[in-house]
Amino acid sequence: MYEQVREFYTSKGFGGRMGFGERPALVVIDMARSWLDESSPLGSSNLEPVMANILQVLATARNAAVPVFFTTMVYNPGEHEGPRGKKLLHTSRDGALDRDSGLSELDPRLERRKSEILIEKQFASAFFATPFLTYLNTYKVDTLIITGCSTSGCIRATAESANNYNLHTIVAQEAVGDRHPLAHECNLTDIDMRYGDVVPVPEVLEYLTARKH
Amino acid sequence: MYEQVREFYTSKGFGGRMGFGERPALVVIDMARSWLDESSPLGSSNLEPVMANILQVLATARNAAVPVFFTTMVYNPGEHEGPRGKKLLHTSRDGALDRDSGLSELDPRLERRKSEILIEKQFASAFFATPFLTYLNTYKVDTLIITGCSTSGCIRATAESANNYNLHTIVAQEAVGDRHPLAHECNLTDIDMRYGDVVPVPEVLEYLTARKH
Amino acid sequence: MYEQVREFYTSKGFGGRMGFGERPALVVIDMARSWLDESSPLGSSNLEPVMANILQVLATARNAAVPVFFTTMVYNPGEHEGPRGKKLLHTSRDGALDRDSGLSELDPRLERRKSEILIEKQFASAFFATPFLTYLNTYKVDTLIITGCSTSGCIRATAESANNYNLHTIVAQEAVGDRHPLAHECNLTDIDMRYGDVVPVPEVLEYLTARKH
Amino acid sequence: MYEQVREFYTSKGFGGRMGFGERPALVVIDMARSWLDESSPLGSSNLEPVMANILQVLATARNAAVPVFFTTMVYNPGEHEGPRGKKLLHTSRDGALDRDSGLSELDPRLERRKSEILIEKQFASAFFATPFLTYLNTYKVDTLIITGCSTSGCIRATAESANNYNLHTIVAQEAVGDRHPLAHECNLTDIDMRYGDVVPVPEVLEYLTARKH
Repeated sequence: MYEQVREFYTSKGFGGRMGFGERPALVVIDMARSWLDESSPLGSSNLEPVMANILQVLATARNAAVPVFFTTMVYNPGEHEGPRGKKLLHTSRDGALDRDSGLSELDPRLERRKSEILIEKQFASAFFATPFLTYLNTYKVDTLIITGCSTSGCIRATAESANNYNLHTIVAQEAVGDRHPLAHECNLTDIDMRYGDVVPVPEVLEYLTARKH
Repeated sequence: MYEQVREFYTSKGFGGRMGFGERPALVVIDMARSWLDESSPLGSSNLEPVMANILQVLATARNAAVPVFFTTMVYNPGEHEGPRGKKLLHTSRDGALDRDSGLSELDPRLERRKSEILIEKQFASAFFATPFLTYLNTYKVDTLIITGCSTSGCIRATAESANNYNLHTIVAQEAVGDRHPLAHECNLTDIDMRYGDVVPVPEVLEYLTARKH
Repeated sequence: MYEQVREFYTSKGFGGRMGFGERPALVVIDMARSWLDESSPLGSSNLEPVMANILQVLATARNAAVPVFFTTMVYNPGEHEGPRGKKLLHTSRDGALDRDSGLSELDPRLERRKSEILIEKQFASAFFATPFLTYLNTYKVDTLIITGCSTSGCIRATAESANNYNLHTIVAQEAVGDRHPLAHECNLTDIDMRYGDVVPVPEVLEYLTARKH
Repeated sequence: MYEQVREFYTSKGFGGRMGFGERPALVVIDMARSWLDESSPLGSSNLEPVMANILQVLATARNAAVPVFFTTMVYNPGEHEGPRGKKLLHTSRDGALDRDSGLSELDPRLERRKSEILIEKQFASAFFATPFLTYLNTYKVDTLIITGCSTSGCIRATAESANNYNLHTIVAQEAVGDRHPLAHECNLTDIDMRYGDVVPVPEVLEYLTARKH
C-alpha cells in the first residue's frame, strides 16, 4: 500500500484497528462472468489468483458454518437510464450487465448453495438499495469479511457502508482485485485508513477456523 | 489524474460524461476549523487555494440564486463508540470532532446565511443518515456541485451517493482538496471514471452564471 | 374516513394539502396473484372494484406518457428468516410469497409493458431496500400517485416514504384497497393527516389527462 | 385492539409472535414539550399515564444497564420547506417544532443522562435520516423496546423501520399514546399484525429485570 499516504494519515489519527468481532459473515462481491470472462466488455484476465484465494476463504467459512452471501450486478430494461447510465457506458451502451446477456451469472467454481443468498444489485455498495443489512441482522452479524472485485468500486463502497453501520469491517487482502494495480493499491490504503481493516488472507482463515466448534 | 488508470478504465466503458442538468445545488463539504486550523489534530495547511476557489463558486451560486448547503462533522458523547471509533481515532481518542471542541464550526469566511442549511454529519457521505436528499428534493434539484474536503473521504463518498440517487454529479476540480496529493489524484480519477464528472472550476462558474435570469 | 380523528388532527395543524406537482409517476403496488387469487393463503375477493379503478388510472397515465412502475413481493430461500418471518407467517410458514409459488406474478389484466419497471420488494414500502427512488429521479419525478394494496400495509408505508423524500404524495382513494374496511378507513385517515393527499380517482384522472400535450 | 381486524388478519398468517431477543435497547420517542405542554399548538393533556409508564420502564432499563435512547423533533430554518411542510402545518406555518420555540426540549422528568444519546429527527421514524441504526449496532442490539408518542405517527413508523431491519420489535403497550383513542387502537392493531409485538408494560418490565446480572 501507499506508504506515504499511510504514514501521513496515521499521524492524523486515521487507520486504527477495528479487529474482528464475534459473529462474522462472508460476502463474495461480483465474481460473475461480466468481470471474469474474456468475452465480456468488462472482462479482465488477472483475477485468477484472487479467485483462488476466495475459494479458500469460502471453503473455510462454510466449514465453520459462517453465513455466506454473494452479489452480482444486473439490470433489466429501463433500469440504467439517467445520469448513471451516461457515466457507466458498459451498462447503458454496451448492455454488459443486462440480464439477457447472461454475464451476471456467478462463476460456477463458487458452487453457490441454495441456502446462500444471492443479492442482485445495481450500485457499487452491496448495501445500497438492497436488503443486505436485514439479512445480516438475521444472523446478528457484527463482522463482515469482504472479498471479490473491484477494489476501487464495489469493494470500497461495500466497506464504507459496512463501516457506516458500525460493523467490524474486514477486507481480505489477497481475495480482492481490480483491473488496474494502481487503483487497487490506492483504494486498499484508503479503506485501511478510513473504513475497515485490510487483513492478509491467512489471518482471515485463522479467524474463521477458530469459529468452528 | 492517473492517466494509465483513466485510459484503461475508459476502454472498459467507464468514465462517460453525465453533463450538467437543469436545477443545480451547491454543497460545501466540511470546510470547518477541524480540517483548516493548525491547532486541530486533523488540521492541514494546504487548503487555502481550495478555499479561494470555493469562495468564488459560492459567490457565483448565491448570485444565481442556486440553493447552497454546508456540512460539518460533529459528535456528541457516545456517538463514536464501536468499531467506527476504533478506526477513526481522531473521533474517539482525540475528540477532535466533539461538539465541545468547537472545531466543527465552519470557517467564517464562508459567511453562511441563515437560510442556507448546515448539515451535521457523522459519516463520510453527506447523504448517509442525514435529510440531505429530502432537502434537495424541496428544490427539485437534479445536479449536485460538490466542493470542500477531503477528496479521498467525504468528497468521494458524497459523489458516490449522489450518483446512487441518479443526480448529475459534478465535482469542482480545484475546489476540492486532500491532506495528501496522491490520495487526491487517485480519488479524483475514481470519481471521474465511476460516479461523477470532475469539472474545472471555470466551467462550473460558467454554468452557474448562465443560471442567472 | 374517521371524521372525529380528522377533525381533531386538523385542529392541531395536521392534514394540510400538498397538491399535485409537475412531473408525476404512477406506482401500482402488489396487484399480484398472492393478494387476488382465491387459491392464495393471502387472497381476498374484494379487490375487483379497486382493480377496475387501477386499470382506468393506468390507461390514463400511459396515454399521458407518465412513467409507470409496478411492485410485487417475493422471497427466495433464506430471505424471510429472523424476527420478520416470525411476525409474517404467510412468508415463512406458508411460503405464500416464495418465488416458486408463482403467486408473486402480477395480475395479467395490468398488461405490464417491458419498458415499465417491476420492483421486487420484501418490505411494506416500495422504497425500502429497492432502487425505486433512483428510478424516479431518472424522470425527475416530483409527484407520486399511489394505487394498489393493502392500504394498512404497503400503501401507507409507501406513502410515508414518499413524504420522507419530499415528493407530492397522492393516494388515489378508490384505487387502493384492504382486506378489512376498518383498517382501510383508519389508514386512509392517517395518510391524509400525515403523509399525503388522499384524492378521489376522478380528480387523479383529470390531473393526468391535463398532462397530455 | 380492533378484534375484528385482528381475527381476520391472523387468519391470513399475520400477527405471529417475534418474542424478545437477547440484547435489548430502549427508545423513548418524542416525549418533548411540543407534545406535552398545554402551551404548544400540538400539545395534548392525556399523556400523563403514558409518561408514568415510561418512567417505570426507563428506570428498569437503566437499572439493568440496557442502552437508552431518546428522540425529539426539531427543525431549523429552511428544513420544513416543500410538500412535507404543506402537509404538516404545525411545522411550517405554526413553527411549533422550530428550534427557537424551545418546545423540542425533552420533558425534564425523563432526566436524560449525558451518556444517553438524544436523536434529533425530522421524520416519523427514528431511523429515517438519522444514525440510530449505527448507534444500535454499537451495542449489538437485537431487540428494540419502543415507548412514547404518537402511536399513529412516530411509534408506528419506528416499529415498521425496526422490523425492516429484522430487530425484535417490541411496543410497550401502556407506554405509548396518541391524541386520539381511535387512531391509537387502530395503529396498535396494525403494528401487532405486521411489524412488532405489542406487549403489556408488566411483561416488558419482567424481561428487562431478568437482564440484570
